[in-house]
Amino acid sequence: MRRLRLLTSGESHGPGLSGILEGLPAGLRVSTPLVDRDLRRRQHGYGSGKRMQIERDRVRWTAGIRYGRTLGSPVGFAVDNRDWKNWTDRMSIEPIPADRRPKPITRARPGHIDLAGALKYDTDDVRDVLERASARSTTPRVVAGALARQLLATCGVRIWSFVDQLGPIRAFPDADDILSAIPRGWLKRDAAEPSPLRCPDPEAERAMLAEVDAAKEAGDSIGGSFVVVVEGTPIGLGSSSEWDTRLDGLLAGATMAIPGVKGVEIGLGFGSVERRGSTVHDGMVDEGGRWARRG
Amino acid sequence: MRRLRLLTSGESHGPGLSGILEGLPAGLRVSTPLVDRDLRRRQHGYGSGKRMQIERDRVRWTAGIRYGRTLGSPVGFAVDNRDWKNWTDRMSIEPIPADRRPKPITRARPGHIDLAGALKYDTDDVRDVLERASARSTTPRVVAGALARQLLATCGVRIWSFVDQLGPIRAFPDADDILSAIPRGWLKRDAAEPSPLRCPDPEAERAMLAEVDAAKEAGDSIGGSFVVVVEGTPIGLGSSSEWDTRLDGLLAGATMAIPGVKGVEIGLGFGSVERRGSTVHDGMVDEGGRWARRG
Amino acid sequence: MRRLRLLTSGESHGPGLSGILEGLPAGLRVSTPLVDRDLRRRQHGYGSGKRMQIERDRVRWTAGIRYGRTLGSPVGFAVDNRDWKNWTDRMSIEPIPADRRPKPITRARPGHIDLAGALKYDTDDVRDVLERASARSTTPRVVAGALARQLLATCGVRIWSFVDQLGPIRAFPDADDILSAIPRGWLKRDAAEPSPLRCPDPEAERAMLAEVDAAKEAGDSIGGSFVVVVEGTPIGLGSSSEWDTRLDGLLAGATMAIPGVKGVEIGLGFGSVERRGSTVHDGMVDEGGRWARRG
Amino acid sequence: MRRLRLLTSGESHGPGLSGILEGLPAGLRVSTPLVDRDLRRRQHGYGSGKRMQIERDRVRWTAGIRYGRTLGSPVGFAVDNRDWKNWTDRMSIEPIPADRRPKPITRARPGHIDLAGALKYDTDDVRDVLERASARSTTPRVVAGALARQLLATCGVRIWSFVDQLGPIRAFPDADDILSAIPRGWLKRDAAEPSPLRCPDPEAERAMLAEVDAAKEAGDSIGGSFVVVVEGTPIGLGSSSEWDTRLDGLLAGATMAIPGVKGVEIGLGFGSVERRGSTVHDGMVDEGGRWARRG
Repeated sequence: MRRLRLLTSGESHGPGLSGILEGLPAGLRVSTPLVDRDLRRRQHGYGSGKRMQIERDRVRWTAGIRYGRTLGSPVGFAVDNRDWKNWTDRMSIEPIPADRRPKPITRARPGHIDLAGALKYDTDDVRDVLERASARSTTPRVVAGALARQLLATCGVRIWSFVDQLGPIRAFPDADDILSAIPRGWLKRDAAEPSPLRCPDPEAERAMLAEVDAAKEAGDSIGGSFVVVVEGTPIGLGSSSEWDTRLDGLLAGATMAIPGVKGVEIGLGFGSVERRGSTVHDGMVDEGGRWARRG
Repeated sequence: MRRLRLLTSGESHGPGLSGILEGLPAGLRVSTPLVDRDLRRRQHGYGSGKRMQIERDRVRWTAGIRYGRTLGSPVGFAVDNRDWKNWTDRMSIEPIPADRRPKPITRARPGHIDLAGALKYDTDDVRDVLERASARSTTPRVVAGALARQLLATCGVRIWSFVDQLGPIRAFPDADDILSAIPRGWLKRDAAEPSPLRCPDPEAERAMLAEVDAAKEAGDSIGGSFVVVVEGTPIGLGSSSEWDTRLDGLLAGATMAIPGVKGVEIGLGFGSVERRGSTVHDGMVDEGGRWARRG
Repeated sequence: MRRLRLLTSGESHGPGLSGILEGLPAGLRVSTPLVDRDLRRRQHGYGSGKRMQIERDRVRWTAGIRYGRTLGSPVGFAVDNRDWKNWTDRMSIEPIPADRRPKPITRARPGHIDLAGALKYDTDDVRDVLERASARSTTPRVVAGALARQLLATCGVRIWSFVDQLGPIRAFPDADDILSAIPRGWLKRDAAEPSPLRCPDPEAERAMLAEVDAAKEAGDSIGGSFVVVVEGTPIGLGSSSEWDTRLDGLLAGATMAIPGVKGVEIGLGFGSVERRGSTVHDGMVDEGGRWARRG
Repeated sequence: MRRLRLLTSGESHGPGLSGILEGLPAGLRVSTPLVDRDLRRRQHGYGSGKRMQIERDRVRWTAGIRYGRTLGSPVGFAVDNRDWKNWTDRMSIEPIPADRRPKPITRARPGHIDLAGALKYDTDDVRDVLERASARSTTPRVVAGALARQLLATCGVRIWSFVDQLGPIRAFPDADDILSAIPRGWLKRDAAEPSPLRCPDPEAERAMLAEVDAAKEAGDSIGGSFVVVVEGTPIGLGSSSEWDTRLDGLLAGATMAIPGVKGVEIGLGFGSVERRGSTVHDGMVDEGGRWARRG
């Protein structure tokens, strides 16, 4: 059973991005600054393009909230594109005279949707497809995620994330190390959040920043990976009832649908390939009436 | 298989109504005036409230269309509430100081969601629920419907409608009469469309107008019914494959979800209750290589 | 938000009908005799065909229930076709030699899917489509409905039904009469259930039985209508939040998807067309701390 | 737009597993032996438990197929549990006398749903949850997958898979190596399929078999990873239109929903983390009217 439905719309250089999130309960207190903070997190990565610096996204609620609380009706929202005034010809919604119409884009970039999209939608102008298949299309997902995060916070669930690897630089020797550091409190949200790369290890971060600079210098880009931490999850979310109700599958599906993501792991992930089962599976023990992980 | 997904949002007196329609093919030519015409049809019924006269709705596309054609990405749209400036306190999205906050509505109207909604969503201010459960919530459905109609038109399907009864005044003796008049061309869209009540029979219309006036005079309202005509439908839409893929069920479900609609019929509808099967079921005959209805 | 998912399968003369219902909570006590009783109700209408008398359907659970209680996993069930042994050639799943293969059906019946289905699925044998588009396809819906009814019963909701009209014979003068008889206790499930036609009025029933006999005699069939009563519904089911979450629409959609159903009404239904609003809308009053209908 | 819907049901030791697949086109030729071959593939891995050897699963079609071709109606199918006769008390669907009822399972295994499921569904008998959350629940997914594979084969799409790593033994140095071997024809389905581990490299396979034996000897299990190859995919499957229509996300979600799967990669996957963009993104070139990968 999925409680929430989300549709999003918007081209990268159109008037803006928007979304409708249906299914939130009534009476949820919504903090707009917390949503804007998440939008800022999406934009300001170290080394991000100029576009990111121009935009400074802010959510504009259009429906479903009154006096700071959800009404139970669908929440509508928009994030306006600040640069829209410079794109009204190139992205005009209504037909425009041929002489005002810019030249179509006919060169397909590697590693992008350009070629496949132009063939799929049968267009001579690659802009028709690249505008939607853009990293910017995640903007409304961030807003919806920020709302979901506020809902989960009322149940004591806290979600945060950090960068654990960038190019060849790892902040942690392996997944094990991360998995044991978090519950022991050796690794905290506060260590990661202020960093320009959201890397919780200052030494690794310095090396990562150098790596980014070097790639930039070379006119290139560089890969990376991040960890999402969910704390306070109640037991029993998701269900093994049906193939499409399993929490692992839903999370992996949503994550892999972020442009640029090429791999998803849960827990040890591929780290469990080399292991024997006895070293992978957690035993649970009853610690005076409270379930805890063994050892 | 449902090809299109639609989510809508918006309160009756909030900033506006909006919707996202996902699944339209790329390359569909969109006529904005035809969409606005359908919005006008929604608003200007004879006897409609003052609100209807203020609004003069116009669609504002926000995504999914470029140079007058769909891109294949979700189509986003908004219809702004022209009266919003007078409602910014009563419908403020952000919290406002208590002294600027208007008195809550605590009186539940008969025949509306007011009581059930207030109990369901546990609110002391009926406005929290009546704003969404309003006839105005059909506005984005009209926009989506206008787009669907333009898509269907490319396949030769034409959809129109007319009022056949208002209070005790019937424009036609019975459903049979309507069903035989349309394919014979005795009843056409052009006869119904210009009428203020969209009633194709001038005499019946005069009586209907008087009926509306009388009800209004008495501080009351009056019931009515309408017929939706779909011409040019290809054979084989919908499917008997599964309980929720049958076209009749999908149409009836969407129609009954219009506020105020209390009954839906297909073809003869309840008119077939009194009949024997031999007078209800159409036989089909092969008229020189073309299927036609018998008799 | 829809909590339950249902898929059904099965041809009218294949091995049987089956269904999978996903989303029932764990721990629901399931009464198999009550499900079989509902299957019997589906079959034994007065005047029903011979097929109905052969079948005597019984549910066979295949999954999701243990020791008489649901497990929370999908409930699988089958209703075997008792006559299957006589159809193994005509409905063989595996290919069979051409000489054992019966002649295809090439004559399309009026009032059935035969012609449209053969064109849609491009088959020369109408049996390929009529086997699924059969009244028998409602069998798994009855099983799922019987489970849903048992779930609702735990919340105090009781659902029953009766026939109010058959051909020209009406058991009640109009919808008003029915709507006022039920809450006053003048019309009860026990009056309707034992009747062969499930008509609660003995006099009307006698006339209806004669009507059925007369139609049968004439080699014809006859229309009818029925009323579904839901008692004990809690306030606030369904939602006005979105176009497809309204209870009226969901009920109308599911009802119109029953083969042969051509019209659906809620409450007064088309009876409200001729009325003024003041006589249609219920006022609610507070009767010493309990909400009640006015007048 | 999802064309197919699948629901599955069945407990590991109940009467059997079943599924309903809705949405297949009419007229698809179904090969039952090919479905059974896929069921055999699921069962006979080297080192698999005794249960696997007992079962020898075979599909039993119950609906939607006639004379070896789909009808367009939902395809129903069952895979019977051959051992069911030994489990009729422990998995009785109907209530049974307390004295025949076996003792509940109260010990939760590590690495399984046992504890979380018992808490979620509030049961004292872990069997209530472990029966569904079993590897055997993938059986109906295999049948549905085999049907989908036959549909895709009619479009020239071929899907196969092999094991590339087991414990510390890798058949290939890295993902790059695999990605370049397949299009060059150095790695073929025929090399992998006959192997008991479906490992295409005989030397690696010998080491893997020894690894499995050693783990078994130690009363332990061992991790592994596999590669799924899809050949002949037409350009343009999936869509960047909406967050949940992206092919990568759908594939990752379905894969991660297989019990025991803890990580999913597309293409280079995590191999791209250490890389610069210039070495990751494929350029496409026009080779005399046919698109090909650069270099």
